[in-house]
Amino acid sequence: MSSEISTTSSGSGITCIRAGWVIQVDEENSVIPDGCVVWDNESHRILNVCPFSELPADVEVTEHLPKHAIMPGMVNCHTHTPMAPLRGYSDDQNLQDWLQKYVWPAEAQFVSPEFIKLGSQLCIYEMLLSGSTTFVDMYMFPRAVAEVANDAHIRCFNGEAVMDIGDGTIDKMIEAAAEYVNNKAFADDTGETYCLRAPYVITVNGDDQIIEDGCVAWDTRTKRITHVCPTAELPNDIKIDESLEQHVLIPGLINCHTHVAMTLLRGFADDLELMDWLDHYIWPAEKRFLSKEYITLGTQMGVYEMLKTGTTCFLDMYFMPADTVAVTVPAGIRCFNGHAIIDFGDGSVDGLIDVARDYVNNAPTSLVTPVICPHSCYTVPKENLQKLAAAVSSRGDEVPVLTHIHLHESTGEIASYYEKSGESAIETLKSVGLLNRNMIAAHCVHLTEDEISTLATAGVNAAHCPRSNLKLASGLSPVQRLLDAGINVCLGTDSACSNNSLCMLQEMQFASLVGKLSSGSDARSVNCHTALRMATMNGAKALGKDKDLGSLEVGKIADIVAVDLGHIGSLPVYDPVSALVYTNERTVSDVWIDGKRVVKSSQVLTMARPNVNQMEQFRRRLIKFKKEECGPRARHARGPAEWNGSGWSWSASCLRGGEDADVTLAAAASNELPPNRKLIHSERLATAWRKQYKALSSEERDFSDVDFDGVSS
Amino acid sequence: MSSEISTTSSGSGITCIRAGWVIQVDEENSVIPDGCVVWDNESHRILNVCPFSELPADVEVTEHLPKHAIMPGMVNCHTHTPMAPLRGYSDDQNLQDWLQKYVWPAEAQFVSPEFIKLGSQLCIYEMLLSGSTTFVDMYMFPRAVAEVANDAHIRCFNGEAVMDIGDGTIDKMIEAAAEYVNNKAFADDTGETYCLRAPYVITVNGDDQIIEDGCVAWDTRTKRITHVCPTAELPNDIKIDESLEQHVLIPGLINCHTHVAMTLLRGFADDLELMDWLDHYIWPAEKRFLSKEYITLGTQMGVYEMLKTGTTCFLDMYFMPADTVAVTVPAGIRCFNGHAIIDFGDGSVDGLIDVARDYVNNAPTSLVTPVICPHSCYTVPKENLQKLAAAVSSRGDEVPVLTHIHLHESTGEIASYYEKSGESAIETLKSVGLLNRNMIAAHCVHLTEDEISTLATAGVNAAHCPRSNLKLASGLSPVQRLLDAGINVCLGTDSACSNNSLCMLQEMQFASLVGKLSSGSDARSVNCHTALRMATMNGAKALGKDKDLGSLEVGKIADIVAVDLGHIGSLPVYDPVSALVYTNERTVSDVWIDGKRVVKSSQVLTMARPNVNQMEQFRRRLIKFKKEECGPRARHARGPAEWNGSGWSWSASCLRGGEDADVTLAAAASNELPPNRKLIHSERLATAWRKQYKALSSEERDFSDVDFDGVSS
Ligand SMILES: [Zn+2]
Ligand SMILES: [Zn+2]
Ligand SMILES: [Zn+2]
Ligand SMILES: [Zn+2]
Repeated sequence: MSSEISTTSSGSGITCIRAGWVIQVDEENSVIPDGCVVWDNESHRILNVCPFSELPADVEVTEHLPKHAIMPGMVNCHTHTPMAPLRGYSDDQNLQDWLQKYVWPAEAQFVSPEFIKLGSQLCIYEMLLSGSTTFVDMYMFPRAVAEVANDAHIRCFNGEAVMDIGDGTIDKMIEAAAEYVNNKAFADDTGETYCLRAPYVITVNGDDQIIEDGCVAWDTRTKRITHVCPTAELPNDIKIDESLEQHVLIPGLINCHTHVAMTLLRGFADDLELMDWLDHYIWPAEKRFLSKEYITLGTQMGVYEMLKTGTTCFLDMYFMPADTVAVTVPAGIRCFNGHAIIDFGDGSVDGLIDVARDYVNNAPTSLVTPVICPHSCYTVPKENLQKLAAAVSSRGDEVPVLTHIHLHESTGEIASYYEKSGESAIETLKSVGLLNRNMIAAHCVHLTEDEISTLATAGVNAAHCPRSNLKLASGLSPVQRLLDAGINVCLGTDSACSNNSLCMLQEMQFASLVGKLSSGSDARSVNCHTALRMATMNGAKALGKDKDLGSLEVGKIADIVAVDLGHIGSLPVYDPVSALVYTNERTVSDVWIDGKRVVKSSQVLTMARPNVNQMEQFRRRLIKFKKEECGPRARHARGPAEWNGSGWSWSASCLRGGEDADVTLAAAASNELPPNRKLIHSERLATAWRKQYKALSSEERDFSDVDFDGVSS
Repeated sequence: MSSEISTTSSGSGITCIRAGWVIQVDEENSVIPDGCVVWDNESHRILNVCPFSELPADVEVTEHLPKHAIMPGMVNCHTHTPMAPLRGYSDDQNLQDWLQKYVWPAEAQFVSPEFIKLGSQLCIYEMLLSGSTTFVDMYMFPRAVAEVANDAHIRCFNGEAVMDIGDGTIDKMIEAAAEYVNNKAFADDTGETYCLRAPYVITVNGDDQIIEDGCVAWDTRTKRITHVCPTAELPNDIKIDESLEQHVLIPGLINCHTHVAMTLLRGFADDLELMDWLDHYIWPAEKRFLSKEYITLGTQMGVYEMLKTGTTCFLDMYFMPADTVAVTVPAGIRCFNGHAIIDFGDGSVDGLIDVARDYVNNAPTSLVTPVICPHSCYTVPKENLQKLAAAVSSRGDEVPVLTHIHLHESTGEIASYYEKSGESAIETLKSVGLLNRNMIAAHCVHLTEDEISTLATAGVNAAHCPRSNLKLASGLSPVQRLLDAGINVCLGTDSACSNNSLCMLQEMQFASLVGKLSSGSDARSVNCHTALRMATMNGAKALGKDKDLGSLEVGKIADIVAVDLGHIGSLPVYDPVSALVYTNERTVSDVWIDGKRVVKSSQVLTMARPNVNQMEQFRRRLIKFKKEECGPRARHARGPAEWNGSGWSWSASCLRGGEDADVTLAAAASNELPPNRKLIHSERLATAWRKQYKALSSEERDFSDVDFDGVSS
């Protein structure tokens, strides 16, 4: 990537810190009030230091610290970090006494690579906390010190101490010192195995095994789990890197249905009937506000929340999917997503299908898998579903492309579709050939016994969304019946706009408690273990990743979540799964995805906190819009679909525009093209997205070839 | 209270800190590893300093800090705290230049009581954080410094600086200095008004008013709210003591049905049908483990969780109510409670009624109100309910005694009761005269339209417990129908054993989302504002306290909760009530009850964290008990009640003992008396409880007269 300042890379190319003061330590001892420091994330070089007022307009502030001064990292030019274990061991002595009577005898007896390592860890920890970024160290076993420094990511200049102690060993010391200096610099990749220990390891394996005082270790190169066992059975050569005192380790949570960018609309319109909500609030707002900025910020918020609440993988259906993964990839979260296909009744659906298909042509990477997302049967004509099915089946992929759809969510929609089509949505999907184990069907609330059998036989995966179904008053999915029929039921939050939370722990609580109600009031239904399995293993299975994800087992990829059960509100722990599902104070503390730590002590490491000021600007505009243009007075009293009183119908006229100059939903999705042009310029957009996607997924992240004019606003 | 070391006062009389090291600073510079410091909470004098191993057996450790050293507070013997605003104003000058060219001119221009106050605040804050507990200060306006010190609870020796500056003012200075020294010491009670400011004040007043950028102020002596208004309208003479940047202020949450001591059984047995759960797990466990220690620890855990989650008042039904309030009063939480009355079929019910009535004879205090708690119609014979009703109505209290009962919780119980009695429980209560507005009826899940009318006409308050009803598969209360019928519906968590959480914020989320389902799938039902009202104002009304509690209005008592809505998972805030009810990351940060702060920055101030080791000991014993004696093999296959397959029946034989030497539930409640003695020695126990209760409620807290042998194990 080039080092010029540019925001076309969605902010992943540069970092800009704005602070109350920037202390430059240049020749003039300049201090810039309200200043910025900008650097390149690849070269790590500072590109610009300036007052905020002079920051180029296209540079976005990554983090604003109004009460902080920022300054160069401090350089500690003389220390002996390994001596930390002797801190306070012999105070108030003069130098010679101190050395001869205390320090040297102690060193003679105690110094070892172990001792060195511990001491360096102590001191480096302290130095980092107090702002030193570089240190110069003189001691024995310099390699051990360097290893600690390398792991801790601090700069270290060090070498073997050479000293004549009168026993003829000085020559050996000189030799060692020379040899050390001739060593190659450290490679970044020093890891081998990383091992966690916790009071409980909840495996979600075939036996639902829970290991008390257990360990999970993985190979940091392959990212695959190598050990899951009681601590007592851990092989001697595996050292424990981290002991969690009051935590459970669980597989990463998998959210199988959401629209993450809609997080920006969280709480925008609550306690409304589905069609009132859509017609008078959500669709008008999306029409007006959908843009690359909206998608980026909404996705940042949603991903931040998901990481903090232990979700490591999610399935997303929305517009502008490449802008979504532009956020998810740097954040290190797994994303399965695709462009929502909806017939807007204006002839654009073929173009949309092209866009969606083009997106799917991008090969899956370790963190992104493209998915085909027809919104629903009632919004995509059967002939288009047929085309999609043909396109998918003709690919002949080794790993088939997944499809994701809304299915049988509310009674009105089901009745109206049947009236219009003479068959149910399930029958339609079956007849076009999409009803199979590559389909993840969201909701599945209202089903006949026959339909349950049909779904089970076809191997369709059901993404249960209990809170969204409750909040929109859609109904209650017969979850235990689906499970008993052999359907793979996974769990989804739906969007933060109909939930209003993306927390999968809380979704499990609802799935389990409300699940009992949906099965004839049997308290044993959808028990806490089942809820956890739905949120992990069943999700992995739905996504075709049951060999890689969903449980803590040897050979699986290290997607691991540590949940702190030490709060009084979660104690006592008779069964850690019960505490996880049924209590509220349990807190996600640490998350690893693909073997990489993305959350540490409840702090997200891989992305900045989403920009609250930007959010506030959206909020103010949306509040004003809601007051002036939503509700009964909504100018777009009809959304893209028409509601005939008891069900949906998709009309060719409803989105044509008319007297309103606003761009349509689809037009907004294609970046605010004028309303009277063909809505989707599929070729141009698809090319740009494909390139952006490729750039994000590849090692080099070269965006130079991407035509962002087609995508950014 | 006497200053001798004793634990009979439930730990409220002394504090014992155990630490890794106690640095005494005595003549010998003694340092005690693993030592303790014990002091009297009334006299504030240290009673004992010793190694932990030598701590008298009856002294309970209040707090254990294994990694800390404790030492005497440091004494800063020379400072000028008001000068803090000049910190860094003129560095690197020699003394005379510094004084004459910088400090004195600045002081001449800027010093004022305001300046003094700000400076002292800054310095005292810093001194407290760095361990100084006493300081000696020399400056102008010593009274302003002393006021700040007094508020901050730090020791201050100070006086007017006297200095001849050649202008003849020294005489005046001497006069002022003398006058200051002759001042009386500060009274403790300096407070007048305390004022909070926050982005949103959610009043839950008659108009459901939400104030953006609002203030709530109260009189610290009367504890009553004096101002609730937009910040812009706050009178000039009210200063804002605390500004919360991203919070809402709401009335304290009121939990109208729980069994708090059962928190110790949280998660002990989940996902079981009601009778399996009771018969094979809960009742056997209660029989075996119920004791003063169990009640105390369980209550501590529950109260700690409630305070942290914003509950300021709760209604409790369980055994040994005086031991419950022995925890709640020092914790500063409001408790309405009474002794559960159950006919154990062994002739003890009359005695139990005496105990319960005796408990109610204790007059309400600001934090405790005794309540009559017949467990349910199916566990208390009608003639006993009649006796209770007569006893209550003959009292002629100005404020009538409240009754609390379980009502129409599950279909099986309702059918079986009807079969046995020829009438419904509601009819029974009506005919004995208990069905009135002084009754809080928990659950009210299954009701006919007629029964809803009956409850509405009678003015009965319904305590809705959505999570407990779901978890025990009891069913779904028609909440919106109850509300529409004019019934006052409040909210309860039930015990942490059937929930498994006491968090009222989360209970609101369930009440609202599941409430939509219970009313014919109307998404507008039980909206978030209704849920909040149920959890606050309706609870206050149920408890007969609607003039004092339940909303933020002038004249009400200051029970206030601050909830942090600044987490990404709760943003954006289009409607703060939506964020409060429908999101998960919102966090209770601060709680005031009766005008006193009990939680600050999510830390409970009024009680120590419950003893996790003690909890662990209970847990191990309970786990063992569960493995060996619960489930199908439970020796007590029947609990105190008998289950005939479709409903309850209360049998005279079921608790008689037989071959099992365990004490019965009631016997355990009366502190493990031998099983063959009359179960409740009502006179003796009632006397002890009454005295303990009186001691707790009064100002003096004199326990010397209480016969605890009758109560403690
Ligand atoms: Zn040195
Ligand atoms: Zn959806
Ligand atoms: Zn001085
Ligand atoms: Zn109850």
